Amino acid sequence: MRIAVIGAGAMGSIYGGRLSLNNEVTLIDTNTQVVEHVQKNGLLLEENGVDNKYTPNAVVDSKEISGHADLIILFVKALFSKAALSGNRSLIGPETYVLTLQNGSGHEDILGEFVSKDHIVIGTTEDNGAVLGMGHIRHGGVGNTNIGMLVEDKDGILPKIKEAFDSCGFHVRIHENIQQLIWNKLFTNVTLSAVTAVLQVKMGYIASNEYAWKLTLALLHEAVEVAHALGLEADEEKLAEEVRHTSESSPLGVTSICFDISKGRKTEVDTISGSVVRAAAKVGVPVPCHTFIVNMIHAMEGRSAEEAVS
Amino acid sequence: MRIAVIGAGAMGSIYGGRLSLNNEVTLIDTNTQVVEHVQKNGLLLEENGVDNKYTPNAVVDSKEISGHADLIILFVKALFSKAALSGNRSLIGPETYVLTLQNGSGHEDILGEFVSKDHIVIGTTEDNGAVLGMGHIRHGGVGNTNIGMLVEDKDGILPKIKEAFDSCGFHVRIHENIQQLIWNKLFTNVTLSAVTAVLQVKMGYIASNEYAWKLTLALLHEAVEVAHALGLEADEEKLAEEVRHTSESSPLGVTSICFDISKGRKTEVDTISGSVVRAAAKVGVPVPCHTFIVNMIHAMEGRSAEEAVS
Repeated sequence: MRIAVIGAGAMGSIYGGRLSLNNEVTLIDTNTQVVEHVQKNGLLLEENGVDNKYTPNAVVDSKEISGHADLIILFVKALFSKAALSGNRSLIGPETYVLTLQNGSGHEDILGEFVSKDHIVIGTTEDNGAVLGMGHIRHGGVGNTNIGMLVEDKDGILPKIKEAFDSCGFHVRIHENIQQLIWNKLFTNVTLSAVTAVLQVKMGYIASNEYAWKLTLALLHEAVEVAHALGLEADEEKLAEEVRHTSESSPLGVTSICFDISKGRKTEVDTISGSVVRAAAKVGVPVPCHTFIVNMIHAMEGRSAEEAVS
Repeated sequence: MRIAVIGAGAMGSIYGGRLSLNNEVTLIDTNTQVVEHVQKNGLLLEENGVDNKYTPNAVVDSKEISGHADLIILFVKALFSKAALSGNRSLIGPETYVLTLQNGSGHEDILGEFVSKDHIVIGTTEDNGAVLGMGHIRHGGVGNTNIGMLVEDKDGILPKIKEAFDSCGFHVRIHENIQQLIWNKLFTNVTLSAVTAVLQVKMGYIASNEYAWKLTLALLHEAVEVAHALGLEADEEKLAEEVRHTSESSPLGVTSICFDISKGRKTEVDTISGSVVRAAAKVGVPVPCHTFIVNMIHAMEGRSAEEAVS
């Protein structure tokens, strides 16, 4: 397959690197330094303690390559999705599929501005990684790459993706109801990530402070109501126990939204908690706490040192 | 009148000091140092640039004096109201009135545990002050002391309070609908104070950041709905403009809840935003954002340095 991976962070590098074994892969990133490094030295992925070298093509801009991609994989931070697809629109032809494995849900709304619904593939990845240095990434946990579509897969793209990915060492699972899987992951994000972010606390605080736990339950309740209205399964009590367990088992963990806020950076809240607000609007479920917390996180993103008290 | 002022902070000292001119006043505070200082040296109030000396009685505990008070004025932080009245229960006889001029609303719920409804006087003060040093308080702005009752003033206590206070330099105004006045002040507190507290920002940020402003409007809307259900007047647009004006005219101001959070202290949120939640429950109006923000402020109060991020 002719694959373009947009975003050369940890995950983009892992997929771009490995997929280059059996596919024509171009890694695209706005960071010139990273792109030049990969062009010159290739990508080093640390896998099971061993550094393996992969040599995908790498460019800053899709205009440097010609023709359409069979598959575009979006691995930028969700708040840059629209800019990334706009900037690389030349890759998108009538046959091009776009795959997102980004955190959160509702990415299909932005993807739908560039390709038709039947050319969108959504999913989650259980793989994880970390950037060790320029062009050097640790491929940590390896798990399933879960994919699915919003409509019937008439052209059989999902089996083709599975074949292309699996031949490069991934474990692709095709799901009939991918939204269920995405939401299963979302429940933890819209509770734990959002609450730790606004309180600026480590993960353990969620289960250990009674008020933080009340905030968590209020958000979970709203998300479950939206999920039910979407026709998805969600067992509120069981999910609460899962969130509690996650908090208790990683008490010193820092969620990415919390970390971004602590560094004064923009967060992915719009595709995490914000996706619940948008889904809720579509199905007519009130979600005042999610609306409130999304505005709160945006308000926290906007603080300057002069405006802050502490 | 035989008056006991509980709480020798800035406001308690101002009222306790001045009222001692024409009344038998005892100032009660758990801070032994302050009490001993006042016993020995009296209270110095800086008024119009001049230090005036007042000599109320001062004790740590009401057991040190005998008999009931005609009037108890509560000037402790609202979260200590219950403890303050419990600890000084010996002052309370069948004829004793309790007056609260504390910030927030709903103080009558706690006062009602100690005296009957027809012995509760509630209100607001427009006077303000600041502690300059031990037993030395600046009496800053002077305004009205607004008082009223929850039920008919059958025994005419309000005119008696007015006479006693006015003769000592206060400007007492008696209100038929004191709850309206209390809520007029509350709208600013439940928006500006609560939002600056959770965002840990100065007052100017509320009007200048679009997301902070959305949080403010969401809280205002709920508070207005509760006020209407209570039979009070509240013009949402006009109140929003007042809050905006307060934010813009004191951009560097720090609200007391925000300040307390920044110092890791307990706040008065339960009698500010929390009083809206309790009033809402009585009249059956949903206030999810107020419930959320009260829990959030309590969760922020509970953070230790180890649990916090950044």
